[in-house]
Amino acid sequence: MTEVDMAESNDAALHGYSTNKDNYAKRLRRIEGQVRGIAKMIDDDKYCIDVLTQISAVNSALQSVALGLLDEHLGHCVSHAVAEGGDEAERKLAEASAAIARLVRS
Amino acid sequence: MTEVDMAESNDAALHGYSTNKDNYAKRLRRIEGQVRGIAKMIDDDKYCIDVLTQISAVNSALQSVALGLLDEHLGHCVSHAVAEGGDEAERKLAEASAAIARLVRS
Amino acid sequence: MTEVDMAESNDAALHGYSTNKDNYAKRLRRIEGQVRGIAKMIDDDKYCIDVLTQISAVNSALQSVALGLLDEHLGHCVSHAVAEGGDEAERKLAEASAAIARLVRS
Amino acid sequence: MTEVDMAESNDAALHGYSTNKDNYAKRLRRIEGQVRGIAKMIDDDKYCIDVLTQISAVNSALQSVALGLLDEHLGHCVSHAVAEGGDEAERKLAEASAAIARLVRS
Repeated sequence: MTEVDMAESNDAALHGYSTNKDNYAKRLRRIEGQVRGIAKMIDDDKYCIDVLTQISAVNSALQSVALGLLDEHLGHCVSHAVAEGGDEAERKLAEASAAIARLVRS
Repeated sequence: MTEVDMAESNDAALHGYSTNKDNYAKRLRRIEGQVRGIAKMIDDDKYCIDVLTQISAVNSALQSVALGLLDEHLGHCVSHAVAEGGDEAERKLAEASAAIARLVRS
Repeated sequence: MTEVDMAESNDAALHGYSTNKDNYAKRLRRIEGQVRGIAKMIDDDKYCIDVLTQISAVNSALQSVALGLLDEHLGHCVSHAVAEGGDEAERKLAEASAAIARLVRS
Repeated sequence: MTEVDMAESNDAALHGYSTNKDNYAKRLRRIEGQVRGIAKMIDDDKYCIDVLTQISAVNSALQSVALGLLDEHLGHCVSHAVAEGGDEAERKLAEASAAIARLVRS
């Protein structure tokens, strides 16, 4: 609720990725198409190794999107909180570290 | 005698994953839906960290599918080639190792 | 009293990880011992799968150390630069993102 | 009849990696030295990002060793069991898949 209100008064500060929103949405729709293609490969009994190659490609593409979002998150949301200081800065930093750990381990 | 010839004479033995084909296709369609959901999160300006959490979940789900396919590939296609022996066994083993390396590194 | 001042008067506090320095050094020496153990497993012709299990354990232990160092780096060096602002903040953020990408991809 | 008995009668076939044993042992001793170097970087208060870069390098080097060992394990131990057939083939394949999963997820 509040985040949306903020967004209405100040779009640029909404999220780190907002200025590149169209780019991320477009890449994710392409990835969605790739996953649909992999499901079809299974339907069509395509060779296992070719399916695995496509899965590796999707994982790499998703990782790239994630690293881009994270970079912008650190440069905007986290930096903003750090500049303000206090508990919110601590919370944002801990949250970012947890997200990084999930990415490294997934 | 090619794989396609073999497939024509015996669809069920076509690939390692054939007996679980519906299961894999279903999981991939669910993953496709998850990626579509992530694209929508971007459209709707959802919080970066929540987007990253979903991307990590998709990566884990894709890895599970890949490990399942690989397990069946080793137990069927590769084992079959190894039992036959010769160059084809060598080729299948090298191909599987390359696919494993791509998965580990992606 | 800034981190830089502290650093000048006390090298031990120089970096984000400084207060936990002994802990990190100790974990790395344990990892060093694990790697030495793996080399010995090879010398002693231990079973391949057991060697692989130990390598996976070392990779996980190194990842944990890396995630801890990164967390402290974000909370100290990067936060300090962000609070100061300017080019150095940009540079530190870009540098952290590049390190995260290397970890995710390695 | 144990693995050790087999080894005694035929050292060369002991494990997949046996013919490249010196190469693997040498690479692991180099990695051990790299980890010792990272511990020293911490002792010497080196910059966090430089420490992280070295950790990524060690992880990549360990992954390479693991992929090499796995490739030889599939081409020797697993292939041998598959050629023999039966429960042992099943067991070796399941064991290899589990090791691959640990590598992909670590």
